[in-house]
Amino acid sequence: MQEIVVDAAQLHDFARTLCEKAGLRSEDAAQVAKLQVQTDLRGVHSHGTRTLSGYLNEVLDGKMNPQPELRIVSEGPSFAVVDGDNGMGHLASAYAMQTAIEKAKATGVAAAGVRNAGHFGAAAVYAIMAASNKMVGFSTTNTGTPSMVAPGGAQAVVANNAMSYAVPTGDGHPIVLDMACGVSAWGKISTLRMYGKPIPEGWLLDDTGQPTSEPSQGRFLAPAAGPRGYGLALIMGILAGPLSGGLMSCNKTEEPSEHFFMALNIASFTDYDGYVAEIQRGIGKIHTSKTAEGVEQAYLPGEIEWNNYDKWIESGIPIHVAHLRGLADIAEKLGVTIFWER
Amino acid sequence: MQEIVVDAAQLHDFARTLCEKAGLRSEDAAQVAKLQVQTDLRGVHSHGTRTLSGYLNEVLDGKMNPQPELRIVSEGPSFAVVDGDNGMGHLASAYAMQTAIEKAKATGVAAAGVRNAGHFGAAAVYAIMAASNKMVGFSTTNTGTPSMVAPGGAQAVVANNAMSYAVPTGDGHPIVLDMACGVSAWGKISTLRMYGKPIPEGWLLDDTGQPTSEPSQGRFLAPAAGPRGYGLALIMGILAGPLSGGLMSCNKTEEPSEHFFMALNIASFTDYDGYVAEIQRGIGKIHTSKTAEGVEQAYLPGEIEWNNYDKWIESGIPIHVAHLRGLADIAEKLGVTIFWER
Repeated sequence: MQEIVVDAAQLHDFARTLCEKAGLRSEDAAQVAKLQVQTDLRGVHSHGTRTLSGYLNEVLDGKMNPQPELRIVSEGPSFAVVDGDNGMGHLASAYAMQTAIEKAKATGVAAAGVRNAGHFGAAAVYAIMAASNKMVGFSTTNTGTPSMVAPGGAQAVVANNAMSYAVPTGDGHPIVLDMACGVSAWGKISTLRMYGKPIPEGWLLDDTGQPTSEPSQGRFLAPAAGPRGYGLALIMGILAGPLSGGLMSCNKTEEPSEHFFMALNIASFTDYDGYVAEIQRGIGKIHTSKTAEGVEQAYLPGEIEWNNYDKWIESGIPIHVAHLRGLADIAEKLGVTIFWER
Repeated sequence: MQEIVVDAAQLHDFARTLCEKAGLRSEDAAQVAKLQVQTDLRGVHSHGTRTLSGYLNEVLDGKMNPQPELRIVSEGPSFAVVDGDNGMGHLASAYAMQTAIEKAKATGVAAAGVRNAGHFGAAAVYAIMAASNKMVGFSTTNTGTPSMVAPGGAQAVVANNAMSYAVPTGDGHPIVLDMACGVSAWGKISTLRMYGKPIPEGWLLDDTGQPTSEPSQGRFLAPAAGPRGYGLALIMGILAGPLSGGLMSCNKTEEPSEHFFMALNIASFTDYDGYVAEIQRGIGKIHTSKTAEGVEQAYLPGEIEWNNYDKWIESGIPIHVAHLRGLADIAEKLGVTIFWER
């Protein structure tokens, strides 16, 4: 059996306890646990609690600040730049998005950059924060040193940056696009390896810039749709990096990430209820649209993930045993008892 | 001989005269000519003066307003919605981006939507306006009725929306990403047909949602990188459509387009000179990065287009004879003499 089904609330309490034991403040620990379990619930296991042991080991090794003092280093009516004080990316990112949301309430549109923070997990969770406030949310990141080539390249020059948009739909879940600019997220490649599944052809390139299906030869990631994925990765890295006073990925020698968030207040632009009615009408058309043979229905971006969420919040989240083993290892280090049966 | 080389300044004067003869105001005619010739100069012939006869025929047929009264229908510190008064999309779009730029100078970030206007040509030209003002520019569009499927779909549910980012680099040309969310722009498919070149496999789908390489069977366009291109097209259409009080593409029965623009003032976020220095350092790394065998160098997004621009502004723009024939036809209708040798 590769997977164990765990209760979402128990997983949340467990993750929160781990963070607290590693030295995070209680409210920060709850924030990290909430964002990570939300990510697991949406079936994006690559970016949820699977990554927690890595982050907490960095805290234990003194590489990451468990109690960052978040600080706005520059701001105006519609923008802010937040210094993450070398803490977990989730904390500075949630704070920056909340700041953008508050500013957008007053001005219509606002953005906030984060520098000097860790990886922020799944881009979607921050965009969803804006959507929960009846805003269109956008989030992106400049994630560490380069790992992806330009078209025709044989050297990594951009990071495999993620970007997410969330769009409110009324009472239901928002429409959520969360995508890597590369053909895949690195986390997804790790997850495929964990499940012993093959890495699809064309995802990885070797030293010389040639495609390889042999994971051990895979030095670089290919951009999604060639020049588009490359271009998006470069631009996302500039929004999150140099625009907020940070570095371009190709100029980095260390991992620290920068992030970037935007919120657009729908009620500033137009009548919110009219907006929702129009979106609902569109969703109906898409859901009932004709599909190719063998395809059950057309989905909205993020809808399959929300279907996981709705199911698993009730029945528990199926999690791979290797993922749980990683959590058990850090739990043992921190003196926390695991809540599932080994 | 398929192409004739024409002088850019002469082409500009010719396009401006055509617009004036069709009834546009003199300054509006110059604006349209400038944006379209800039697009031809960048080698994006699909979206430049090639489309002028179509627009002007709509004006002559009374379907498009030659002298729109552009009107801001809602605004605040960081946003505006512009009614294009059923005029050419270029006019309302340039005005909206200029409005966003002015607002971003005051607040750091601003956006502007356009509704009730025509097609806006190439997305890049508006993003470039922001970059010329030391801002990051973003532009997108909700372009007409749907023409692209969702993954697995056999019915068009989203339009093949374009999106563009432009990022200033200091004294040189900005970095410009201009992409369709589909595997290709429809204009590019028309251009390939004009040059008698084959349509690459996987671009077009037939009635049943199956790929076809037979142009006459191609009913729908496939999204770039599957769920990513589909998701981006849907979100771009919501930014330009419902957010600005317009329709989702799948709810449209007529062509009118909506557009959306954003400007981020770099000097608000960080020191502009420091930003430029960091971008220049990155450009140097990318330009000198290792490439795969047979690939001369890695380019920045939009760089190949700027290379065309720099060459052709001196030596003239090579333009396909069918493109020129279209211009000659509308010129004859409007009583304007062509400036090239047939």
